[in-house]
Amino acid sequence: MSKEKETDTLYNIRHSLAHILAMAVKEFDKDVKLAIGPVIDNGFYYDLDLSKPLSEKELPTIEKKMKALVKKGIEFEGKEVSAKEAREIFKDAPYKLELIDEFEKGGETLTVFTSEDFTDLCAGGHVANTKEINSDGFTLQKIAGAYWRGSEKNKMLTRVYGLAFATKEELDAHLAQLKEAEARDHRKLGKELDLFIFSPLVGSGLPLLTPKGTILRTELDNFVWELRKKRGYERVSIPHITKRELYETSGHWEKFQDELFKVSAREGREYALKPMNCPHHTQIYARKRWSYKELPMRLTETTTVYRDEQSGELGGLSRVLSITQDDAHIFCRANQIKDEMFAIWDIIDEFYDVLKFNMHKIRLSFHDPKHFEKYLGTKEIWQKSEDALRDIAKERKANFYEAEGEAALYGPKIDFMAKDSIGREFQVATIQLDMNLPERFDLTCVNEKGENERIVMIHAAIMGSLERFLGVAIEHFAGSFPLWLSPVQIGVLSISETHNDYARDVWQKLIDEGIRAELRDENESLGKKIRGMKESKVPYFLVLGDKEVSEKTVTLEKRGGGNEKLSVDDLISKLKREIKEKI
Amino acid sequence: MSKEKETDTLYNIRHSLAHILAMAVKEFDKDVKLAIGPVIDNGFYYDLDLSKPLSEKELPTIEKKMKALVKKGIEFEGKEVSAKEAREIFKDAPYKLELIDEFEKGGETLTVFTSEDFTDLCAGGHVANTKEINSDGFTLQKIAGAYWRGSEKNKMLTRVYGLAFATKEELDAHLAQLKEAEARDHRKLGKELDLFIFSPLVGSGLPLLTPKGTILRTELDNFVWELRKKRGYERVSIPHITKRELYETSGHWEKFQDELFKVSAREGREYALKPMNCPHHTQIYARKRWSYKELPMRLTETTTVYRDEQSGELGGLSRVLSITQDDAHIFCRANQIKDEMFAIWDIIDEFYDVLKFNMHKIRLSFHDPKHFEKYLGTKEIWQKSEDALRDIAKERKANFYEAEGEAALYGPKIDFMAKDSIGREFQVATIQLDMNLPERFDLTCVNEKGENERIVMIHAAIMGSLERFLGVAIEHFAGSFPLWLSPVQIGVLSISETHNDYARDVWQKLIDEGIRAELRDENESLGKKIRGMKESKVPYFLVLGDKEVSEKTVTLEKRGGGNEKLSVDDLISKLKREIKEKI
Repeated sequence: MSKEKETDTLYNIRHSLAHILAMAVKEFDKDVKLAIGPVIDNGFYYDLDLSKPLSEKELPTIEKKMKALVKKGIEFEGKEVSAKEAREIFKDAPYKLELIDEFEKGGETLTVFTSEDFTDLCAGGHVANTKEINSDGFTLQKIAGAYWRGSEKNKMLTRVYGLAFATKEELDAHLAQLKEAEARDHRKLGKELDLFIFSPLVGSGLPLLTPKGTILRTELDNFVWELRKKRGYERVSIPHITKRELYETSGHWEKFQDELFKVSAREGREYALKPMNCPHHTQIYARKRWSYKELPMRLTETTTVYRDEQSGELGGLSRVLSITQDDAHIFCRANQIKDEMFAIWDIIDEFYDVLKFNMHKIRLSFHDPKHFEKYLGTKEIWQKSEDALRDIAKERKANFYEAEGEAALYGPKIDFMAKDSIGREFQVATIQLDMNLPERFDLTCVNEKGENERIVMIHAAIMGSLERFLGVAIEHFAGSFPLWLSPVQIGVLSISETHNDYARDVWQKLIDEGIRAELRDENESLGKKIRGMKESKVPYFLVLGDKEVSEKTVTLEKRGGGNEKLSVDDLISKLKREIKEKI
Repeated sequence: MSKEKETDTLYNIRHSLAHILAMAVKEFDKDVKLAIGPVIDNGFYYDLDLSKPLSEKELPTIEKKMKALVKKGIEFEGKEVSAKEAREIFKDAPYKLELIDEFEKGGETLTVFTSEDFTDLCAGGHVANTKEINSDGFTLQKIAGAYWRGSEKNKMLTRVYGLAFATKEELDAHLAQLKEAEARDHRKLGKELDLFIFSPLVGSGLPLLTPKGTILRTELDNFVWELRKKRGYERVSIPHITKRELYETSGHWEKFQDELFKVSAREGREYALKPMNCPHHTQIYARKRWSYKELPMRLTETTTVYRDEQSGELGGLSRVLSITQDDAHIFCRANQIKDEMFAIWDIIDEFYDVLKFNMHKIRLSFHDPKHFEKYLGTKEIWQKSEDALRDIAKERKANFYEAEGEAALYGPKIDFMAKDSIGREFQVATIQLDMNLPERFDLTCVNEKGENERIVMIHAAIMGSLERFLGVAIEHFAGSFPLWLSPVQIGVLSISETHNDYARDVWQKLIDEGIRAELRDENESLGKKIRGMKESKVPYFLVLGDKEVSEKTVTLEKRGGGNEKLSVDDLISKLKREIKEKI
């Protein structure tokens, strides 16, 4: 995920630290071959081809070397060089040589930056002197494997990550956030709360949702459908495979090859597992000639797409091979774009508001003018689409910024950036404006003059990947889901065996009202039952003993602490109201 | 689909007619190579390798020849022959020679049957003389292509189908049923009522459901879930692909190879599209050690499986590549089998009763003792499972029969045979008892003694393939769906423009109550609007004019004819009650 460019100062600090890291590593392993060392969110990394093993145990030593270098007050000096000069400087650095070839082909100017006896190929953006770097404001974080240039066909390198900020306070705040994030890691909570599993026989990147995880997902998906249904959306249903002809027409076959799962069948037939739903949905639109009076047509479907990711990229629910999307495609006329986008925007605002995310920024994701070959369609169409999105964002008075190179294959996007409960930023919903697929599939309506008029498509996802969003939501709530989302909404605990009949009666009444109640009447101590409830983070539980039985009441214990006494009917009204209002 | 064996007499008539067909074809094409000519439901066919083209235009001529032969009173005589003798008789018949080799290898006795100068390789079952055949009781029906031995690697032959009954009346009744079936053909109605489509870009066998078709499917699926939820089922969610290791463990990789779609991925990884859900569901069960107190565990999921069928086998919704199943797997102890099966049986009875199918027979589908190699597990396990099913069917006092060779790969089944509204028999729901997958996946619970105890699995589908069932249901109702199922439940028609505001108010009230109402307020004649309602077979529509506006009432027209005047509130109560009660 890309972010707005941080202030130049911070960028320069992080970039300089990547060089300092390389210098420190060279002291550890003089034969190391350096690959690339860019700035990333919150810090930097360097990819290294080491001649001897490096483990996280060694990171403090390297960090210490870095701090010593920083304190020395090293200066950075840059200069332009010819490709020939660069090849001489980096003659023993094969990765740099590969980059030089590429930059030369691209007609780019080459620059090198030198700090003491270390010279790196680099476009610049450095501190003038390492004295500008706070030596308590950075730390080395971790080590991971990474393929050279991200391709599994290449060698696996060692990537060392660093965190860097202007001050120690900011670094500490970030480390505290990471610690809090670790405590609520969805992989850990997913296991503890029994929400999803991975099976070694099924494979990594392919989560299986348990009954509890499925309830969570279903509730979230139903909520989105509720918001869409009110606005005239209709559900459709498509298969997960298609002949390649569909993607040859859409352009995905050409531009998306590597990420397509290919399916071989008998009689020499060839299919692909769908990596997105839009081409299938165009076929549902295209089944008839539509009058302009019948538009907009808003088709939606929660369905799973498959993208062939590298094994190394997979992790928990954040990056999976099977991606369930709450997808929608709107087929409309050009003059309907604004109203439709505003309606989607309303859905997004309502959804994330209820879920208590802080929707703080909008990113307009435009094409990369340097790599126009990555996209479908003409420059004119792109210009028109991007202008339309900018106008809409302005009219909505959104807090937006523009980002080049973040567009989809077929059009620019409005991406919604939300902060979770511990302040981490995620891209959540997205709206895409697409004037290309309607061209490719020749989608039209009959206008007032009886002519065929080209329509436009809007792609909109509220949660996007339900797997990824489930991971985000688990961490956002730290597993303490609001009542309407909770897999178990209320526990029903009997104090001893003599209260079991009453407990079962109360439980049955709750179940009959459609409330997800769990009965705990087994022969165990009340303390153990209560501990179980607290561990599973259930929003409410009832403790039923002599008093409750005789008074025909319940004592309602709340997750946050506190309790109240109620009649069963009042309990049911209270729960139903809170569920309905999604409090 | 197999059926109970018809009476021997009818079998003999049909079988003899297959020979007579071959004799008549030989007069048409003396160089024809004969393949096989078996008896099927309602008639027979013969697969022919013709030396000149045969079209349906020629069928009456051939039928005429057959009738002439029948009337001659031809006798059938059979005798046993050695493989050598058979090879001499059929030296010019390559398909027969291939069969002779195979029968010889299988150690089977060979018999040939002669009628006049025609001799066929055949296990027998014939009339003694064609005088026993009613020459008005049969007809040639149609021609289709069929691969020799059903494999697309072999030559495509010409299959001629015939219908045959004991009397002309029975033949006529069957032809009338076929005609009625044609009128309500789901492919035709699917288009007229806009329920589903096929796209040439997506491919045959891969239906896309329109908004209306999706409503139908969703309502049916919700009904099954409602019945299951009451009985303690829990929903889960799995991906559509898996590493092959899952199917190597389950045995599907070995026994089901041809029908598996194989998926190739980067890094040399290999996946399969799931052809069934049970192996994935075992992994959800296997995530924990369960106490016997926590069983039965009833997991259910509506999800799509993929089976690689031959193109020639695909047709409408009846045979598709993408099969959405309302699948369930129950993990339980041996002593819980009966209760669980009875509970499923209750669901099936309730579901098909509401849908007005006539559940008239139960088939116990057992293994084929001659081909035990087709199944997983030991003979002892099969004996035990089949005995259990027989006992359950007896205790349920079901009208059942036993059929060899109809079992699933991993266990015997109870198949429910229902008749639709025009008397056609379909296999609908199915319950399978499986003692094999629990062995292969080592599924256990901890019993009262603290030991690991092997559990059993029950597989249960209520509709089975939702695509196929949708096709069956469309034909069963001839597109006139009951109110609760109807994609559009009520039309709201204004007589003229001056009634549009009132019509819109009424429509909005219906929509707000969750009733699927369609507003027809466009500037068209009332006659045209009414015709539209009738063509789309909407259960109800309202006609709103001056009187209704002034009285604040509605005139409700019923699909079957007749109407009544109501207040809007009464209309809403009436509709909601009928929808809830699934009348």
